[in-house]
Amino acid sequence: MQEDLVCLISADRMYASVSGKVPHETVSMHPLGLAAAPEQQPLCIFGTGDLGRSLGQCLLQSGYRVLYGSRRPHTCGPVPEGAQVMSHVAAAQSAHLVFICVHREHYDFLKTLAPQLQGKVLVDLSNNLKKGVYPDANAAYLQRLVPGAAVVKGLNTLSAWALQNGLLAGKQVYLCGDSAEAKQAVAQLSTRLGLSVVDRGSLCAARELEDFPLRLFPEWRLPLRLAVGLTAFFFFYLLIRDVIYAYVENDKDISYRILVSLANKVFPIVSLIMLSLCYLPGALAGFLQLYRGTKYRRFPDWLDRWMRCRKQLGLVALGLAFLHAIYTLIIPIRYSVRHKLISRVVDELKNNKTTTPFDFDDTEAWGSDSLFMLGILGFFLYFLLGLTSLPSVGASLSWREFTFVQSKLGHLTLFICTAHGYLYGWNKFLRTSTYKWYTPPGYMLCLVVPSVVLVLKLLLLLPCVDRSLTRIRQGWERSEPRGETKATNL
Amino acid sequence: MQEDLVCLISADRMYASVSGKVPHETVSMHPLGLAAAPEQQPLCIFGTGDLGRSLGQCLLQSGYRVLYGSRRPHTCGPVPEGAQVMSHVAAAQSAHLVFICVHREHYDFLKTLAPQLQGKVLVDLSNNLKKGVYPDANAAYLQRLVPGAAVVKGLNTLSAWALQNGLLAGKQVYLCGDSAEAKQAVAQLSTRLGLSVVDRGSLCAARELEDFPLRLFPEWRLPLRLAVGLTAFFFFYLLIRDVIYAYVENDKDISYRILVSLANKVFPIVSLIMLSLCYLPGALAGFLQLYRGTKYRRFPDWLDRWMRCRKQLGLVALGLAFLHAIYTLIIPIRYSVRHKLISRVVDELKNNKTTTPFDFDDTEAWGSDSLFMLGILGFFLYFLLGLTSLPSVGASLSWREFTFVQSKLGHLTLFICTAHGYLYGWNKFLRTSTYKWYTPPGYMLCLVVPSVVLVLKLLLLLPCVDRSLTRIRQGWERSEPRGETKATNL
Amino acid sequence: MQEDLVCLISADRMYASVSGKVPHETVSMHPLGLAAAPEQQPLCIFGTGDLGRSLGQCLLQSGYRVLYGSRRPHTCGPVPEGAQVMSHVAAAQSAHLVFICVHREHYDFLKTLAPQLQGKVLVDLSNNLKKGVYPDANAAYLQRLVPGAAVVKGLNTLSAWALQNGLLAGKQVYLCGDSAEAKQAVAQLSTRLGLSVVDRGSLCAARELEDFPLRLFPEWRLPLRLAVGLTAFFFFYLLIRDVIYAYVENDKDISYRILVSLANKVFPIVSLIMLSLCYLPGALAGFLQLYRGTKYRRFPDWLDRWMRCRKQLGLVALGLAFLHAIYTLIIPIRYSVRHKLISRVVDELKNNKTTTPFDFDDTEAWGSDSLFMLGILGFFLYFLLGLTSLPSVGASLSWREFTFVQSKLGHLTLFICTAHGYLYGWNKFLRTSTYKWYTPPGYMLCLVVPSVVLVLKLLLLLPCVDRSLTRIRQGWERSEPRGETKATNL
Repeated sequence: MQEDLVCLISADRMYASVSGKVPHETVSMHPLGLAAAPEQQPLCIFGTGDLGRSLGQCLLQSGYRVLYGSRRPHTCGPVPEGAQVMSHVAAAQSAHLVFICVHREHYDFLKTLAPQLQGKVLVDLSNNLKKGVYPDANAAYLQRLVPGAAVVKGLNTLSAWALQNGLLAGKQVYLCGDSAEAKQAVAQLSTRLGLSVVDRGSLCAARELEDFPLRLFPEWRLPLRLAVGLTAFFFFYLLIRDVIYAYVENDKDISYRILVSLANKVFPIVSLIMLSLCYLPGALAGFLQLYRGTKYRRFPDWLDRWMRCRKQLGLVALGLAFLHAIYTLIIPIRYSVRHKLISRVVDELKNNKTTTPFDFDDTEAWGSDSLFMLGILGFFLYFLLGLTSLPSVGASLSWREFTFVQSKLGHLTLFICTAHGYLYGWNKFLRTSTYKWYTPPGYMLCLVVPSVVLVLKLLLLLPCVDRSLTRIRQGWERSEPRGETKATNL
Repeated sequence: MQEDLVCLISADRMYASVSGKVPHETVSMHPLGLAAAPEQQPLCIFGTGDLGRSLGQCLLQSGYRVLYGSRRPHTCGPVPEGAQVMSHVAAAQSAHLVFICVHREHYDFLKTLAPQLQGKVLVDLSNNLKKGVYPDANAAYLQRLVPGAAVVKGLNTLSAWALQNGLLAGKQVYLCGDSAEAKQAVAQLSTRLGLSVVDRGSLCAARELEDFPLRLFPEWRLPLRLAVGLTAFFFFYLLIRDVIYAYVENDKDISYRILVSLANKVFPIVSLIMLSLCYLPGALAGFLQLYRGTKYRRFPDWLDRWMRCRKQLGLVALGLAFLHAIYTLIIPIRYSVRHKLISRVVDELKNNKTTTPFDFDDTEAWGSDSLFMLGILGFFLYFLLGLTSLPSVGASLSWREFTFVQSKLGHLTLFICTAHGYLYGWNKFLRTSTYKWYTPPGYMLCLVVPSVVLVLKLLLLLPCVDRSLTRIRQGWERSEPRGETKATNL
Repeated sequence: MQEDLVCLISADRMYASVSGKVPHETVSMHPLGLAAAPEQQPLCIFGTGDLGRSLGQCLLQSGYRVLYGSRRPHTCGPVPEGAQVMSHVAAAQSAHLVFICVHREHYDFLKTLAPQLQGKVLVDLSNNLKKGVYPDANAAYLQRLVPGAAVVKGLNTLSAWALQNGLLAGKQVYLCGDSAEAKQAVAQLSTRLGLSVVDRGSLCAARELEDFPLRLFPEWRLPLRLAVGLTAFFFFYLLIRDVIYAYVENDKDISYRILVSLANKVFPIVSLIMLSLCYLPGALAGFLQLYRGTKYRRFPDWLDRWMRCRKQLGLVALGLAFLHAIYTLIIPIRYSVRHKLISRVVDELKNNKTTTPFDFDDTEAWGSDSLFMLGILGFFLYFLLGLTSLPSVGASLSWREFTFVQSKLGHLTLFICTAHGYLYGWNKFLRTSTYKWYTPPGYMLCLVVPSVVLVLKLLLLLPCVDRSLTRIRQGWERSEPRGETKATNL
């Protein structure tokens, strides 16, 4: 009896060590032990397409035995060396974990395999070509077809290309499924391939997982639309003020300026506005918390969405600032600029009015150099901010470091860039010739938002306001009589 | 009896499979099986603040059941959908793993819960607002309050923001604690959330873990201080030599040059010095090893600290080189430069002394072009060095590649940048007018350190020296008679 | 009997929970339980060199007990605090996992320890100084010396430096070995150190793992050689056409132009060619698939290798474009350019032929500005492409996003850069003076490849071609009668 018991324990432990869960019903059912003893239990892959083959190759490299299930085992084309090809039925019977690398449209055949797949783990790797084609998730459909199997949705963010070229190292993959054991088995296997696994709960999350590979920069849409809108507005505004005004009033065609001079006015304007829009929601949130006297009420939806795309707003602003920098640097090699320089010298020499303009204007020299200095410094800080938003750099910062960079350094950048803007127009604010057709120039318009943000931030930094806000952010609540209880929570 | 045994084994295995450790005392105590069977065992969170709520939401998403413990379960405000709120006592009784998301000042109430928390795992997520406020770590204090529980310090580097926005993927978290089982349970749970867990040993490390989020660029302090010191020194040195000298001796006010011209002299000087300071400790270490005849004795502390901040030294140097590059590129658009160009043409034309200066000087053309070429090439290599110090790029390099880039490419960069410096002053070294008030110009001063480093490196590359050093670095020891035994070790 | 059984189960479970595999022979042999109960089972390190000491320190930090095995335990020099030093025999007996941190040449002594090492896990961390010095892998040699032990090759990509400075976080390490239990034990231990483990199968892979640290940019070789070859060719081609032609035909020495002007012609030419070579294999592959009517036949080897280095081709092209950008921006500060500008003004004023050249040429202004605009835009997109090839940025993109950036944005970049090239020569194509010595200028040569790539891509985008190709890429096969069966596979 002792011997029997040992065997029983062994078989069962094999199960337990994989699934980490006790089978309450019986002891030796469903021995899913493959992930723990990969050399013995083969894995099965249905589908000999690109993904199926690449996956099989990866599994073989990590020491697993691989079986392919195919309708026509003898004519299914090449499979990775070391793998076997069988009929679907035979493959399903020999393995306990089956990867489904087949398009959803062809899942029907799995229904007929339901008896063989009873109690097996099915990993659904399928993706759709578009969102919302089917009413339910592929994995949910699969589960309905084979109710006796434990369906796990996952690994569908892996591409055949990444699998073939060993680019799995540390890649994040998501799993979901209703059976904890099945998920555990797939997670162990994925970990052995070097993947980093995130458990997303039950099979209800399958839809979400299937939409992952179809994402196309959802968080960039709002910032990009805003950038395009602002760029278009300021482009036409400046086109009218600069080019069309010159044509109508002075009868001069300066349309050649559109490509570079005009663009180089639009870019910094939009960049500065977007940078300040990055910091505006933070200030608004602060005032809202002060007004409400608590941090425990959710922000309105629009503010929440705005705060969530601050990073993208900032990066678009950085891109535009980068364009502004290069556009500025190429000024002296442009034909029109060189022409102007030469013709000015020649003109002045010919007309013998050379005395005044060549006097060195010290204020002008200080002004132009300060403008450039502030611009360069601002761009440099901008660039540092952008660097810390790289995933790997950001991940290496502590929370305090991240806050320091994004808040302190960020506001400093905004301040310097705004000062750069003010300095640009320093001697033009009071000149009436600046206001062509009674409209203010573009840089004046663009200074409104950053100035407001800086003033709001300054108000929040006033000692009395700052103290209240800090208390609220540490959990204190004004409205509640026993507010100090809340403050216990992190 | 067979049946009873099976049950016994089952319950116990559940324990073993989670903790990975055998309970020596009794078999079925402390069934910590929650991480393995998350659908059945709820997790408890004390504290319904930002962090508690965000953590609960994450755990719910990964399929765990979540209970909140609160003093006033009915008025504690909203908790994530799907979670339950209970009294502290009830919550502590139902769960076996409790997350403590409460400020340390309010830990007292846990003392009264000690009976309920007996044998439970307590995860201390608390952070302090400042270092050194309390004599001991929060987790150690918690352990003293509830001696019967297994306290694990960890996850405290996660922010509520990161938890809410699903930014956990691959994030590194640290754990420490005196109970291996408890740590294992928390580690499994963290792995399921996609976190990457590092075990830092016993609870003694809690202090260190609590200081992590309060870090503020400790490794950047020395390089930044050095940069500020050098910048200030060279700024005043050049201010005296350039601006004040011109004012005193020639009675000319060229103070407008401070912002750009002067800055553009200071930046490359400091950058080059800091780049060479990056490579100086390596050379010094080589000579020290040669002198000692062994690599097994520790370097002096100052050298060790210096070597540890080489990366930061290099990055600060790169930042300054970047500023130098942009400052150089804006030269032609500055007012004073354009003015000088125009006035020079006009002057020369008027005075009819146009013959000589407009002769094309071939040496000058070669000189200026070589200067720019070396500068651009140096900056380009500098930039590549900086790129490989990005965490994700550096991690993808093999050891040999990393050494190649940081040592070979690094010294090449230093050589090119030094050559750029020499070329800048190529025709000024022997001119007496260069030495105003008997002081050497800034670029001469800044060439001293890099030249020394390059000479030292050259000495180390001499075949005979190189051979000795390589032997020492492979483990050979001069002083010891049986030195070859040491050489067996990697 | 009940008690005995419990003990038996416990001892055995300890085994099972580590190895995840059932010991079929007997129950309580090889208790490898160290990774699961690190506080109790010590780990052994053979070799007290840099690597051995650093590794020991790391293990101690994570709460393991560490023993060093040394030939002369009393004179082996300092070991990390908390570790013990013993004779090899004693250390081997006390521990079940032994790290071999010794050079391969000194493995002989392990043969004599074979009895003590029977049934132990040996982790071979050794590396060689060069490839191909020994006929077999170090780990295979070790296995032959100690056949009774379970040898695991791995962790050999860690450097003593990284171990000492706690830079292990998330670092990828590879393991291989013939025993699944042994690998599992090492993997658990590595995970506790924060490493991310990839299983590479059996000990046959040891060779590959030992070659990892000796890699020196293998995937960069082809692109770099190509870049050097193309640069050399175009350098000499342009040297002959520009400098030597001027010297021979016009007797003018313009050799000073070599360093900057000539380089600034070569860089963009090579950059554009390499960018187009990045996208050519994709177009060729498309046509090949169309011709073959299937995607299931492997591409020829040369095409495969070409496609695998597209990323590196693109990054080298970006580097050259970066150089081109800076070279262009420094044009106006070069001595020769300033001299030309001044002398032109003076010349024209003196000769009184000032009327014509100073007329503003509107076409010229539009042309030069368009050229710059396209160049800047192209460089900006180039830069974005480069950014997404950073490992951490690329990893955060979904498959659709990655495809969008690399294919759509990539081709747009190529189109803009090609247009930039055409615009550069827009008014020179029909001028005979352009064709010195009957050779076309460099930029014309360089436009050939990108134009071909763009035309091929356009052909592939024709609706009818695109439809066929999409069907083929979804698995459809022309040649096969029952092609639709294939289309089931992902």
